[in-house]
Amino acid sequence: ITSKLPAVGTTIFSVMSQLAAEHKAVNLGQGFPDYEPPQALREAVTRAMAEGRNQYAPGIGLAPLREAIARKTQRLYGHAVNPDTEVTVTSGATEAIFSAIAALVRQGDEVIVFDPAYDCYEPAIDLQGARAVHIPLTPPSFSIDWQRVRDAITPRTRMILVNSPHNPSGAVLSADDLDTLADLLRDTGIIVLSDEVYEHIVFDGAAHQSVLRHPELAARSVVVSSFGKTYHCTGWKVGYAVAPAALSHEFRKVHQYVTFCTFHPAQVAFAEFLDSHPEHYLELPAFYQAKRDRFRALLAPSRFKLLDVPGGYFQLVDYSAIRDEDDLAFCQWLVREGGVAAIPLTPFCATPPGTRLARLCFAKSDATMEQAVERLVRL
Amino acid sequence: ITSKLPAVGTTIFSVMSQLAAEHKAVNLGQGFPDYEPPQALREAVTRAMAEGRNQYAPGIGLAPLREAIARKTQRLYGHAVNPDTEVTVTSGATEAIFSAIAALVRQGDEVIVFDPAYDCYEPAIDLQGARAVHIPLTPPSFSIDWQRVRDAITPRTRMILVNSPHNPSGAVLSADDLDTLADLLRDTGIIVLSDEVYEHIVFDGAAHQSVLRHPELAARSVVVSSFGKTYHCTGWKVGYAVAPAALSHEFRKVHQYVTFCTFHPAQVAFAEFLDSHPEHYLELPAFYQAKRDRFRALLAPSRFKLLDVPGGYFQLVDYSAIRDEDDLAFCQWLVREGGVAAIPLTPFCATPPGTRLARLCFAKSDATMEQAVERLVRL
Ligand SMILES: CSCCC(=O)C(=O)O
Ligand SMILES: CSCCC(=O)C(=O)O
Repeated sequence: ITSKLPAVGTTIFSVMSQLAAEHKAVNLGQGFPDYEPPQALREAVTRAMAEGRNQYAPGIGLAPLREAIARKTQRLYGHAVNPDTEVTVTSGATEAIFSAIAALVRQGDEVIVFDPAYDCYEPAIDLQGARAVHIPLTPPSFSIDWQRVRDAITPRTRMILVNSPHNPSGAVLSADDLDTLADLLRDTGIIVLSDEVYEHIVFDGAAHQSVLRHPELAARSVVVSSFGKTYHCTGWKVGYAVAPAALSHEFRKVHQYVTFCTFHPAQVAFAEFLDSHPEHYLELPAFYQAKRDRFRALLAPSRFKLLDVPGGYFQLVDYSAIRDEDDLAFCQWLVREGGVAAIPLTPFCATPPGTRLARLCFAKSDATMEQAVERLVRL
Repeated sequence: ITSKLPAVGTTIFSVMSQLAAEHKAVNLGQGFPDYEPPQALREAVTRAMAEGRNQYAPGIGLAPLREAIARKTQRLYGHAVNPDTEVTVTSGATEAIFSAIAALVRQGDEVIVFDPAYDCYEPAIDLQGARAVHIPLTPPSFSIDWQRVRDAITPRTRMILVNSPHNPSGAVLSADDLDTLADLLRDTGIIVLSDEVYEHIVFDGAAHQSVLRHPELAARSVVVSSFGKTYHCTGWKVGYAVAPAALSHEFRKVHQYVTFCTFHPAQVAFAEFLDSHPEHYLELPAFYQAKRDRFRALLAPSRFKLLDVPGGYFQLVDYSAIRDEDDLAFCQWLVREGGVAAIPLTPFCATPPGTRLARLCFAKSDATMEQAVERLVRL
């Protein structure tokens, strides 16, 4: 059989987690915390199961959860959304991204993607018979050169994919970026797909610039987020998409045939927890800023050069003082010889980035961080 | 925006469940039980959460769960599968069906689908730029006219979709059907996608004829099942696909970008429960046969004509003695005036079936069944 995705292998996250296990390495690769979701949240799942919430949830998501998401969106971004027509619960952000692309990108369309980009975007675009148009972000800031975006727009451009805080770099969009994007898209029919799964992990007093803050952008955007990163439960796979009714309508047509609905007991739990514990997400920037700062302080004596981390829970490190090889080779060496799993940048890039950068996850307990850094400092 | 799926609305299951709630009707529409998953299974989910199984599971599914599925497959169907390369856990059967079609059906392909068919098949085919070729099943037996299948095969035929026990009719494939299918497909590259979510609900002493029993078919099939129907937890959304390594390889490429992985704690729970409680699925035929027989006995005094139910948990009823209108109109009337939600056959059909049939779900407690039948007998 000929493959529809000949260039695709197993995701780097699975490959690296597997290698980490084989080599008993400390896993700072795949992005997940090694601490648990709040006990009250877990208890709410158990309670929902005991109370008989075990059959299909509504395909678009439980009403109280969609309402809680709408309240949070209003509170944080000043944007009123209708929970019945504009919010859809999905089986993680991955499903939301896939369903948005499958619903809205057509054969022959072009989709603007920044490079590096999270690895699930391009295969979803390819499967529609559409084409990803890559615009490089340049280290160390990984900021967007908007002139290049302007130059890349053609009559075929259907969608632009933004991701802030950005994975893998941690770069964040500014309010100015949003204004520029809105200017660029005015008078076009281009849809924005905004991956905001790290929305609550923005540092140094900055506010997350959701595209939902910008009414003109909100009117043409599908905004995707996930509870996995926020509530320390990446394995629960509950996410959501916020989009204007016309876009949500098309999104839901596809979503209902991709997964139909999402694990019901967790929806009950999140519906309660979002409203009853807003401090959880309000305190998240400080929680992760402390981890970031601690990780950077621990790494200071190492020979890694640390790039700035404005958001997210990943630290990019320049390893050129340690090894002179590409990032795939370096990460292979590091997991085998150094006892630490990291993620190379190449799988996020349409063309090998030619940098000497690797990504380390700092969503880790003190003990894990110390064990990893002990190994990293020795290199 | 122009729709990629202009003919698609909200699934009939969501529409009817919503109407049932609005009209306080007894919901025999959407297929789900009104009893709970086994307590030991729910406790195992709670335990998994407490034991820190809250982060990403492997994208292809937890190894012990894939192994338990392989053991069950060997035990029931005498077919040895490699859990590492041939079994993939998915976010329900819906995701497995979608990912299989997205991975294996290409632009311009034809896919043979029987009519009526579960409603998620055709939109997934359409989204690939492929075409569903419909072959009608004729009531009351809904058996397959294999000569029509033979006539429908063209060089463009990429896949044939079979579903046994069949939703909505309950028809089951026989061993002869499998032989005929194997003969038909010999010397072609046609892939079988076999939806077997009701595999454990086959009545009157018959054995479920999984395509996995037939080595020649197993070698070209993606077999999809789900724990939702078997363990009374349709809202947990854990399913799986079994396919030869080459097909699984392509399937997994897409699956990893559709949902990446599935709710981790439930995977831990099913991995334990499948082996420790095989009696659950072994006793399921008797459990549902008792429900079927009870439902039919209760309905005997009504003016509905009951079609045979060889498998699954749906009863088709002919309502022509009650109302002379199409099934959409009848089900609207029934939920509003009769206080019972049913599912019409039209949404399962490429062309309106012209029958006077509606589908009632009998996966219900005695009390629910009695309350519904009291209303149905009055009509
Ligand atoms: C879906 S596995 C990858 C998790 C993640 O977001 C990352 O590591 O970047
Ligand atoms: C995914 S909702 C539909 C459930 C079902 O299988 C049915 O009612 O046929």
